[in-house]
Amino acid sequence: MTKDSTNKKRRVHFDPDNVDIVVEQGANLLETAIAAGVHINASCGGNGVCGTCKVLIKTGEVKSNKTEKLSEEEYKHGLRQACQSRIITDLTVYVPVESRLEKSILSREGKKVSEALATGWRFKPPLSKLFVELPAPTFADNTGDLSRLLRGLRQRYNLHNITVDFGVIKKLAKVLRGSRWKVTVTTLITAAKPRTKEWRRPRVINIEPGDTRKKHYSLAFDIGTTTICGQLLDLNEGKVIAESIDYNGQISYGQDVITRIAYSQKRGGLKKLQQTVVATINGIIRELKAQSQINVKYFGHIILAGNTTMTQILLGLDPKYIRLAPYTPIANLFPPVRASSLGIKVGRQVYLFTFPSVASYVGGDIVSGIVGAGVYQRKNLTFYMDVGTNGEIVIGNSDWMVTASCSAGPAFEGGGVKHGMIASDGAIEEFDINPSNFEPEIGTINSAKPKGICGSGLINIVARLLEAGVINQNGKFNTDLPTKRIRKGTDGYEYVLSWAPETQIGKDIVITEVDIDNLIRAKAAMYAGCQTLVKSVGTTCSDLEQVIIAGAFGSHMNVEKCITIGFLPDIPRNRFTFIGNGSLLGARLTSFSRDLLDDARRVANMMTNFELSENVDFTNNYVAALFLPHTNSEEFPSVSKTLVKLAKSKPKRRIKV
Amino acid sequence: MTKDSTNKKRRVHFDPDNVDIVVEQGANLLETAIAAGVHINASCGGNGVCGTCKVLIKTGEVKSNKTEKLSEEEYKHGLRQACQSRIITDLTVYVPVESRLEKSILSREGKKVSEALATGWRFKPPLSKLFVELPAPTFADNTGDLSRLLRGLRQRYNLHNITVDFGVIKKLAKVLRGSRWKVTVTTLITAAKPRTKEWRRPRVINIEPGDTRKKHYSLAFDIGTTTICGQLLDLNEGKVIAESIDYNGQISYGQDVITRIAYSQKRGGLKKLQQTVVATINGIIRELKAQSQINVKYFGHIILAGNTTMTQILLGLDPKYIRLAPYTPIANLFPPVRASSLGIKVGRQVYLFTFPSVASYVGGDIVSGIVGAGVYQRKNLTFYMDVGTNGEIVIGNSDWMVTASCSAGPAFEGGGVKHGMIASDGAIEEFDINPSNFEPEIGTINSAKPKGICGSGLINIVARLLEAGVINQNGKFNTDLPTKRIRKGTDGYEYVLSWAPETQIGKDIVITEVDIDNLIRAKAAMYAGCQTLVKSVGTTCSDLEQVIIAGAFGSHMNVEKCITIGFLPDIPRNRFTFIGNGSLLGARLTSFSRDLLDDARRVANMMTNFELSENVDFTNNYVAALFLPHTNSEEFPSVSKTLVKLAKSKPKRRIKV
Repeated sequence: MTKDSTNKKRRVHFDPDNVDIVVEQGANLLETAIAAGVHINASCGGNGVCGTCKVLIKTGEVKSNKTEKLSEEEYKHGLRQACQSRIITDLTVYVPVESRLEKSILSREGKKVSEALATGWRFKPPLSKLFVELPAPTFADNTGDLSRLLRGLRQRYNLHNITVDFGVIKKLAKVLRGSRWKVTVTTLITAAKPRTKEWRRPRVINIEPGDTRKKHYSLAFDIGTTTICGQLLDLNEGKVIAESIDYNGQISYGQDVITRIAYSQKRGGLKKLQQTVVATINGIIRELKAQSQINVKYFGHIILAGNTTMTQILLGLDPKYIRLAPYTPIANLFPPVRASSLGIKVGRQVYLFTFPSVASYVGGDIVSGIVGAGVYQRKNLTFYMDVGTNGEIVIGNSDWMVTASCSAGPAFEGGGVKHGMIASDGAIEEFDINPSNFEPEIGTINSAKPKGICGSGLINIVARLLEAGVINQNGKFNTDLPTKRIRKGTDGYEYVLSWAPETQIGKDIVITEVDIDNLIRAKAAMYAGCQTLVKSVGTTCSDLEQVIIAGAFGSHMNVEKCITIGFLPDIPRNRFTFIGNGSLLGARLTSFSRDLLDDARRVANMMTNFELSENVDFTNNYVAALFLPHTNSEEFPSVSKTLVKLAKSKPKRRIKV
Repeated sequence: MTKDSTNKKRRVHFDPDNVDIVVEQGANLLETAIAAGVHINASCGGNGVCGTCKVLIKTGEVKSNKTEKLSEEEYKHGLRQACQSRIITDLTVYVPVESRLEKSILSREGKKVSEALATGWRFKPPLSKLFVELPAPTFADNTGDLSRLLRGLRQRYNLHNITVDFGVIKKLAKVLRGSRWKVTVTTLITAAKPRTKEWRRPRVINIEPGDTRKKHYSLAFDIGTTTICGQLLDLNEGKVIAESIDYNGQISYGQDVITRIAYSQKRGGLKKLQQTVVATINGIIRELKAQSQINVKYFGHIILAGNTTMTQILLGLDPKYIRLAPYTPIANLFPPVRASSLGIKVGRQVYLFTFPSVASYVGGDIVSGIVGAGVYQRKNLTFYMDVGTNGEIVIGNSDWMVTASCSAGPAFEGGGVKHGMIASDGAIEEFDINPSNFEPEIGTINSAKPKGICGSGLINIVARLLEAGVINQNGKFNTDLPTKRIRKGTDGYEYVLSWAPETQIGKDIVITEVDIDNLIRAKAAMYAGCQTLVKSVGTTCSDLEQVIIAGAFGSHMNVEKCITIGFLPDIPRNRFTFIGNGSLLGARLTSFSRDLLDDARRVANMMTNFELSENVDFTNNYVAALFLPHTNSEEFPSVSKTLVKLAKSKPKRRIKV
């Protein structure tokens, strides 16, 4: 049965969300879930190859292909891959815990972060509100309404060469007369001229009756591949009024940018992705409005940072060539667009600014972080890192910056890991091991029953297993140890972190040699990227004077453990700083300072991108880093010392190299 | 029966146009005619008070109010006012000759005009086409498509600080790759900075695959209250490729701007007027395309001149305050808008520029004429005049300009005249009189049977009647003359120009004392306006070194006769120049020269407007001018001399003053 063969309506009920939706018979179940606001994992973008979107059909009938990702037993029990299922009858669907994305976890607090490392900027938002009182026209002075307004702005605020949006002109006559010639004008000044630094012509984007200067707000957004975070900013006070975060609705079309780009090439795919991210943004705007009780009409503009793919999709621009060698984006800097033209539910006058990018895989989110953290203002040699599916890195100072994207793979986000999961309820994050009996001590997010392992947990586990001699520096298990927890599984040797009865999923949660190998590859890519960049500028990792770590993942990782596995460089620990969501930080600070917004363009231009995939040096560095912490022990002096000490103190568990 | 009470379809056939249209029962007959492209006179804008839209219902039934404008006999014969009629059944409607507007007449040739009086401008259109060949991206050079394009434009054409439209960005990746990196870019540069005269940032508005430089066109429009004229321009050759003219469809909603503004205040009125003028523009564009066989996608931009009301209505801006004291337009200069956003059927990339205006009644059409005629470039004292329903006048030179609108009333366009008509087939234009028997000798447009009197004909008739002593200097008939042609009619004394059997309308065509009085008022307003302006700058009419007359009406009027009646100043005849459609001229020249386009803004700013309605001097001058040619005979020395001579040579017909 195809979707076109019928137009009967079917009701689908999703548990445990307790949500109903009516759709046409034949509709795809994954898309129906998205439409109903039910967050389902779908790493592969609905191609049926990842098996993460399994749901239980409790009542009713679907037509569904059975792929190898579904065991006979699962199939018999009524489990289906949502992406492979078409709705035949009314349904009751249960989304199992493994397939669910919990929204509540998104706002959990990480470690205290240092904000606003950028210095020397004035609080002077690009968006201004100016109140002006004009003389009413007379026969002696019956110039046009617009001339009258511009004359008022010139006399009162010394504003010249103003550009006025047509939307303002459309309501001008009514607003001026309705307010007895007392109006508030919103102007936007976003860029200065390269050499003179003289500000470009101000643009009048809105006019309101009376004095509304107190109602002066804007929106800052970070559009991540996984999550979207928005803040409502008070532009008079320079503070955050409300904040909201949600999964990027596109997550059901693929976990990473590559899968999304692949989806965008399907018929109608780009449009669907664009509408989906806009729906998420609109949901966040609704939430910000509800929290703040501020009318959306006072939200004056939007500054948004996202990676290159997210930015292009949001703007409705085909991301095809981002994925094809030699990886070219359509533009590194897009002109401001009307937010409403993208479907974003704000006033017609609102412009949306996207942060400029450096390359296809070093996007506006990184430039935003560099601006927010003030890396481009520093004299000392700084390493900036944002870890997600791709880890982007930047090295430099106020004179120069080099950058690269390291294809770390999804291990840091729990991908490619047998029991990997996004950092949410029940993810094992804390880990210790009893040196005498090799029994684990685990801590989960929100202390829920264990469900899987998140990225930061994976690092902690591998670091401790290494220190305890349970694995060797190649990441292989010491199978001689007297514990039932080390055993041979379907993917080779594994260590049982939690027995089935203690878990949410009713299965043993294990870490396998394959998982460890994936982590080693991920951290090797990051470290080799760093080495390649520092070498290109004639220095070494130990010369890094400051390391700034951005990203939600960064806020939850343990520096010491990261150094132990050879992920972060082995330098004095006080050189590390965490800034949380760097992308959002930059979007916020540039909303407060037109100086910083203008800097963003310059910063993007001064960053030199390295394509690591084409770099021989990187390949060598990568191979050398496929070891815990590194084949060259001199790169990690403090770790090597500790490992030797531990090995000596426990001769029985000497690591086999 | 109202329009809403039914949704039955009715077919209406219009003769002699032989056009059919299907509309809903209850639809207004005048609007149905407009929709069918049948041009019907409707001076009052459909209020039922002018009686010009009478049509004959040959078969079928309408529901129609009978107003005093329809005699019992007319009503009995099946005549109805189209504006007052709702369609009940299928209809056959005949539009009588008096109610018809003949389109064919619009393009009749006037006297040979002097074009392009503007001097010293370079041929350098605001719109340019630039061909550029870019290197394909490589790993060593994988910057974004847009940076690549801008770099190419910088290297090849030394273009910096370019703004790029989002529409260009949207198709960039495809066009670049589809054309193997050989593209033609369209840029627009429209304004320079006031002081430095440095050009503002170029804007890239289009990108096309391959080399399309040879296909480089734009549109120039004059949007008149009565007619709309468009030209397709070749921007490589600097010439007119095609030209088309049509009645402004709004004419069925009222003859002058005041009636149009009144109509715009009705529910949905503004929108209807806007759509109607756009429909006329689209018709002209279709015609230009058909004539030239050039694809509309190569029409790169539009420059348009119109009076303030026409401009505001076209842009969808409420013209309400133009009509209310102290007569303020919304703006004197509007930003360029996307033509397609107004409903104009050209490419999305096309911007529409409207000429800046000076005041509510001195619009962009006048500024366009001043630019096209180069008045602002002259050293000698120039008088510029554009005569239509309102006569706008400008006096000045390169240092200063003063301007005013004279409410001449509609006499020059045949309005307010018993048998007045627009200058079209059958309008009496030439007139002489046999001095012995007072029999007329008349010439009509296109030598058709007489139908009425057009504006230029009215001037010729009155001038000759004055010279022949048939009327005196007050415009009153000499009733002592031995001719049946002078008689008492319903409107006082009148002179029969054509007996009923010789006419198209089957009635005697006469000129009445009321008609003559209307003409005297009209010419008095114009002349008094001129006097008021010249006096305000400390000079007199006789000091005028050049008189430039614009407008289709101007092209057909006889200077000598105009001076005889005191309409034009009595100065050496070689000082008069005719430029035809000055508004279109300026729109065309600025399409060829960005210098001139930039000048337009400056010109509008340097023109000082006089509100004559509030000016005591004007009132005095006006009263003094209510005489043929003028109460002060010294103002018209040559005319006075002639009249005295004529009077002496024919003592029998001495004029009673």
